[in-house]
Amino acid sequence: MSDRILAAVMPGPRRPIEIREFDRPDVPHGAALLRTVRSEVCGTDVHLWHGRLSGVPYPIIPGHVSAGILETVHGSLRGIDGAELREGDRAVFFDVHRACGRCRPCVVHRTPTRCTARRVYGITDSAEEGLFGGWSQAVYLEPGVHTARLPDSVTFDQYIGGGCGLLTAVHIIERAGLRAGESILVQGTGAVGLSTIALARVGGASVIFAIGAPADRLVLAKRLGADRVFDLTSTTAGERLDRVRALTHGEGVDVVVEAAGSARAFEEGPFLARDGGRYVVAGHYTDAGPSSVNAHDAINRKHLDIRGCWGSEPRHFLRALTLLERYGSTIPFGAIGGRTYPLEQLDAALADAEAMRITKALVDPWASARG
Amino acid sequence: MSDRILAAVMPGPRRPIEIREFDRPDVPHGAALLRTVRSEVCGTDVHLWHGRLSGVPYPIIPGHVSAGILETVHGSLRGIDGAELREGDRAVFFDVHRACGRCRPCVVHRTPTRCTARRVYGITDSAEEGLFGGWSQAVYLEPGVHTARLPDSVTFDQYIGGGCGLLTAVHIIERAGLRAGESILVQGTGAVGLSTIALARVGGASVIFAIGAPADRLVLAKRLGADRVFDLTSTTAGERLDRVRALTHGEGVDVVVEAAGSARAFEEGPFLARDGGRYVVAGHYTDAGPSSVNAHDAINRKHLDIRGCWGSEPRHFLRALTLLERYGSTIPFGAIGGRTYPLEQLDAALADAEAMRITKALVDPWASARG
Amino acid sequence: MSDRILAAVMPGPRRPIEIREFDRPDVPHGAALLRTVRSEVCGTDVHLWHGRLSGVPYPIIPGHVSAGILETVHGSLRGIDGAELREGDRAVFFDVHRACGRCRPCVVHRTPTRCTARRVYGITDSAEEGLFGGWSQAVYLEPGVHTARLPDSVTFDQYIGGGCGLLTAVHIIERAGLRAGESILVQGTGAVGLSTIALARVGGASVIFAIGAPADRLVLAKRLGADRVFDLTSTTAGERLDRVRALTHGEGVDVVVEAAGSARAFEEGPFLARDGGRYVVAGHYTDAGPSSVNAHDAINRKHLDIRGCWGSEPRHFLRALTLLERYGSTIPFGAIGGRTYPLEQLDAALADAEAMRITKALVDPWASARG
Amino acid sequence: MSDRILAAVMPGPRRPIEIREFDRPDVPHGAALLRTVRSEVCGTDVHLWHGRLSGVPYPIIPGHVSAGILETVHGSLRGIDGAELREGDRAVFFDVHRACGRCRPCVVHRTPTRCTARRVYGITDSAEEGLFGGWSQAVYLEPGVHTARLPDSVTFDQYIGGGCGLLTAVHIIERAGLRAGESILVQGTGAVGLSTIALARVGGASVIFAIGAPADRLVLAKRLGADRVFDLTSTTAGERLDRVRALTHGEGVDVVVEAAGSARAFEEGPFLARDGGRYVVAGHYTDAGPSSVNAHDAINRKHLDIRGCWGSEPRHFLRALTLLERYGSTIPFGAIGGRTYPLEQLDAALADAEAMRITKALVDPWASARG
Repeated sequence: MSDRILAAVMPGPRRPIEIREFDRPDVPHGAALLRTVRSEVCGTDVHLWHGRLSGVPYPIIPGHVSAGILETVHGSLRGIDGAELREGDRAVFFDVHRACGRCRPCVVHRTPTRCTARRVYGITDSAEEGLFGGWSQAVYLEPGVHTARLPDSVTFDQYIGGGCGLLTAVHIIERAGLRAGESILVQGTGAVGLSTIALARVGGASVIFAIGAPADRLVLAKRLGADRVFDLTSTTAGERLDRVRALTHGEGVDVVVEAAGSARAFEEGPFLARDGGRYVVAGHYTDAGPSSVNAHDAINRKHLDIRGCWGSEPRHFLRALTLLERYGSTIPFGAIGGRTYPLEQLDAALADAEAMRITKALVDPWASARG
Repeated sequence: MSDRILAAVMPGPRRPIEIREFDRPDVPHGAALLRTVRSEVCGTDVHLWHGRLSGVPYPIIPGHVSAGILETVHGSLRGIDGAELREGDRAVFFDVHRACGRCRPCVVHRTPTRCTARRVYGITDSAEEGLFGGWSQAVYLEPGVHTARLPDSVTFDQYIGGGCGLLTAVHIIERAGLRAGESILVQGTGAVGLSTIALARVGGASVIFAIGAPADRLVLAKRLGADRVFDLTSTTAGERLDRVRALTHGEGVDVVVEAAGSARAFEEGPFLARDGGRYVVAGHYTDAGPSSVNAHDAINRKHLDIRGCWGSEPRHFLRALTLLERYGSTIPFGAIGGRTYPLEQLDAALADAEAMRITKALVDPWASARG
Repeated sequence: MSDRILAAVMPGPRRPIEIREFDRPDVPHGAALLRTVRSEVCGTDVHLWHGRLSGVPYPIIPGHVSAGILETVHGSLRGIDGAELREGDRAVFFDVHRACGRCRPCVVHRTPTRCTARRVYGITDSAEEGLFGGWSQAVYLEPGVHTARLPDSVTFDQYIGGGCGLLTAVHIIERAGLRAGESILVQGTGAVGLSTIALARVGGASVIFAIGAPADRLVLAKRLGADRVFDLTSTTAGERLDRVRALTHGEGVDVVVEAAGSARAFEEGPFLARDGGRYVVAGHYTDAGPSSVNAHDAINRKHLDIRGCWGSEPRHFLRALTLLERYGSTIPFGAIGGRTYPLEQLDAALADAEAMRITKALVDPWASARG
Repeated sequence: MSDRILAAVMPGPRRPIEIREFDRPDVPHGAALLRTVRSEVCGTDVHLWHGRLSGVPYPIIPGHVSAGILETVHGSLRGIDGAELREGDRAVFFDVHRACGRCRPCVVHRTPTRCTARRVYGITDSAEEGLFGGWSQAVYLEPGVHTARLPDSVTFDQYIGGGCGLLTAVHIIERAGLRAGESILVQGTGAVGLSTIALARVGGASVIFAIGAPADRLVLAKRLGADRVFDLTSTTAGERLDRVRALTHGEGVDVVVEAAGSARAFEEGPFLARDGGRYVVAGHYTDAGPSSVNAHDAINRKHLDIRGCWGSEPRHFLRALTLLERYGSTIPFGAIGGRTYPLEQLDAALADAEAMRITKALVDPWASARG
């Protein structure tokens, strides 16, 4: 790697992505430099592009979940599983850094995803601070970042195919308390929804329903494990409810997961669950407007559990790796990644993602645009 | 007790209560006849009077939670705690009967309050079937009803002061998973809210907030254990939120309980809880109309748990008795009961309850209207 | 089916099995008669044969988990999933009957497997009371027995291959709280251990270890999903501990399941779990003598959870059917069944089971001994 | 405070305590110096004195839980509740420091009390490293130590009366999942057992049993909330079991807590719990030798949960403060502290503690031995 590092920078909301050159950073003791092999364009990146998140210190280098090869390691670098990482290793890292570990959310409530000091690669760090995003030929891993060796059997495309959606899905399944033999319905067939489907299959769900669009994502949903899919554009909520009940002893499913980010989805979801079931709300990462909810019908009389799910923790990152290593050969996580873009084409990648022309755009910062 | 039994009958929605005479019923093997000492007028009775519940087989004898003295016992009658009950014993019973114990809600999901076969004294049994309500000088305890001896140290007025609200509150506290040292806020200072406050005090809450009205109920809330009360009529939601946060490290409380039954309460509640907190929705027993909920702010980003809570189970009934026996001398459950009415004045009792002139009306079916 | 029904009767401890003729029983309203297609010889039957269980009303017809075809149904018979069962249907039933649903274990603690009124087909009902065991050409299903249709895709041999071990294993996995991506070790490769391995595989365990013997059971353990097996006869506890730790970041596994029924297994188990892990004790159905446990090393400092697991509940029975239906094509539950015996050879079956010459003996009460 | 600080040093196992002079330490940025007002002699100190813990870097300054007044603060010092602490504040700190927050026990399993990097004031830090124990006129609070202001309403004697036993008890009650209305039995009436009793009372236990000795501790157990006490020296295990069952519907209690540290207690405990109950093992901090346990009777058939409980976490420390603040006026935590010793008499304090002549020895490092 030369001393000049190229990165794609988002200068501000709704402005074109720019390719900029950065100096190769100093790597102090405890830190490392990762040569990026793959990063991704996720739904949050589209939100960032539209300025829908508050407090973002533009310009930023997007790309929060990324993978690569350790180029430089200064001192001993131990992965979260205790093993030492060395230069040349295929490595990944947990995108959330600097959760304080000392505030009440971290220490008392054990909800570190609500730590206010928390920072996230690709989102909360300005490009002026350095290489804190994966849309770059190299990522700076500051001391304290949770890292891990990418298991030999897991390809870069599999890991990034799952990507941040997979980490979120691990947390969703944990919040859902899903057990083998239970039924589940996933609202939304984007990266989070598809990973949730895959994990529900790994975890032994008895039946997996998915609601989504467009058609190619529903095909993908089936490949990842869904038993039955509903096209959002050609079925009504009433039809979906009737069909789900008909297949679940008239009850609805044990677990519904909201991974759609739509106000209408949140209105529909409670009724798809059985009485006493669980409804995990994980798709409302930005404000999609108000829903109309009747607390009597939808919650109180249904004796329903609704569980918000925000972000992910280091243990979800490690669990994702474990599951990829063990089940990557049976579940095609890699298929979630739709197409790989070079840095110069990330405006197009964002547009394709927003228009749902692809499920997930991968980023190869070393690819030539002329390919 | 003579062979003619007087009962107050609700002939239909919005019609005056009538006093009718019933024959003393046959008591088959396994059944019993309870001479009613106290019953109650609860919020559900007001809803019944307005015809807000569906499928009610009017005419009915209202009064679901009641207490009395065993007049006739045919065969061996064992209480839920295994002890035998005898004629002359002070006794109480669990108002839900005929939960099937065989359907999927009962057996598979362990949510028997959602059993469709479930019947409830005072609500789902027609007066034409017999003495299935407490607004009567005697209640027929059919075989299989869960019964218990009223502990010696618990007065009838204490038991009915708690009444059905206390049973619901036991379930609420279980759903809330409240632990000693946690903070709680209760929305609503009716019978359910007040009992929840009392149980939170018994359970070692660090601080108990209550929101309600009118003023005399807030006084009662303090007597039952609330540390700070907000008058719904003289504070805004914004003021309440600011005040609660100021007293909880800026976070909100660990647990919020909705016992108000208002669409506005459900909109306010999530924000009064801390991130990662719990919100038990228990007051929406009838349809109070839709609430506007932003799933992003109120649930997803807050990482909030919302838990609907419907009805109560036999174990909550028994736990209520245990707590009354142990803590009845320190918590004035009896104070919830506002005034005792004879059968002839139950129209007035319903009107008083609806107008919030009293917290809870007690019923003494043997009292003379002329006093 | 003729009016004369043959059954194998265990007249008392250590006495030869006898074939006796029974009258075809009356089938009152709500009851049914099942023509037995398959039953089993499980470990409990060996214990019964040796008189190791107290309170058994010999003579009995053993065989607690069985499957067959409904020969006679009197009135409406609804399965536990709500669907009606008809004569000619392939049907199964939950072996525990008459759990009272009213005692403190049933109602208050929700531990119905500790109900003292509980009775179990093949164990607690005397042959003098009727056809209450599966080693018979027909089984009498009294009113209230939980029944279900055997799913079309599940063969009798698959169902009985799982058999009572599978029901126990469903409960074990529930008690273990096993989640996808966790590691597990199973002590014992009998019917319970093998079913636990299969369910851990269905549930997405990251790695499954098994300790057992003889060699053919270890082969079977691998077929059902174990990743690594230890032969109890050729490895020491120290070697096993070293090996397990070497493969689990030096920690031990998340979950250990004791399905061996040996005092030594219980001494070894805690150390195979990681600190803060879970240890489900399910194999000590009879008294195998005392173990020496150091509470400091094995429990307190390890911050270990040990969870006893007794019997199974109707919901485990239904979950077993759900899992067999969904995963029966990928997990060879049927392979647990070792050999099928006619009634006349059940002494040999007991001897073979005890000597571990087979994993599980199946019973076909209609087969000819001369076959 | 002068520049010379006196501390009581334990030079090694079974050697007399020595008073040594230390230099006033430098206080770097983020650190603080606490003028010690009270420390304690707890059971662990007796074990340290006998050399029963491995890896202790003698000489040490014992005294892990301590309280005092902030003498020097360098930079901003924020308490665990987010509030800033200033010189002159009454302050306390969590004795466990340097838990890494990065290893698998910390991050993946959320069992930080099993972090191998964890260090504990008064136990794991050599006196040669500085003032890391409370048997000293000042304690050095290194950067990162969790601190909190002692609430105004809590006296030093109340806080240290609870002391390390109270922090452990908060963890025990959490592990026990004790709910209001449940019954509990505590084995052991030392500092941990007495604090557990107090917390069970705060948490609304229906009945609290205690087993212990000598007589004055049983009197104290009653003052702190026990309803019934058994003198270990004058009752047999059989008598205790009979009595407990007679008072709990023949079942045993919901929760048993082992806080005795005796091999015999661990043998007795499971049978005092009801079937399906919980048994928290928290007293075996050092090796008290093996117990004989029959896994069939004591665990498997009882369907018992046994939960080891090691150390405490910062959130337990904060919860202890919350509970002391709210309930310190109703529960006499201060009564646990038996007598206050100056530094020169800590040999006597250890001897008194071991001989059970006092419940807990407090330490006042500024008191004169001559009184």
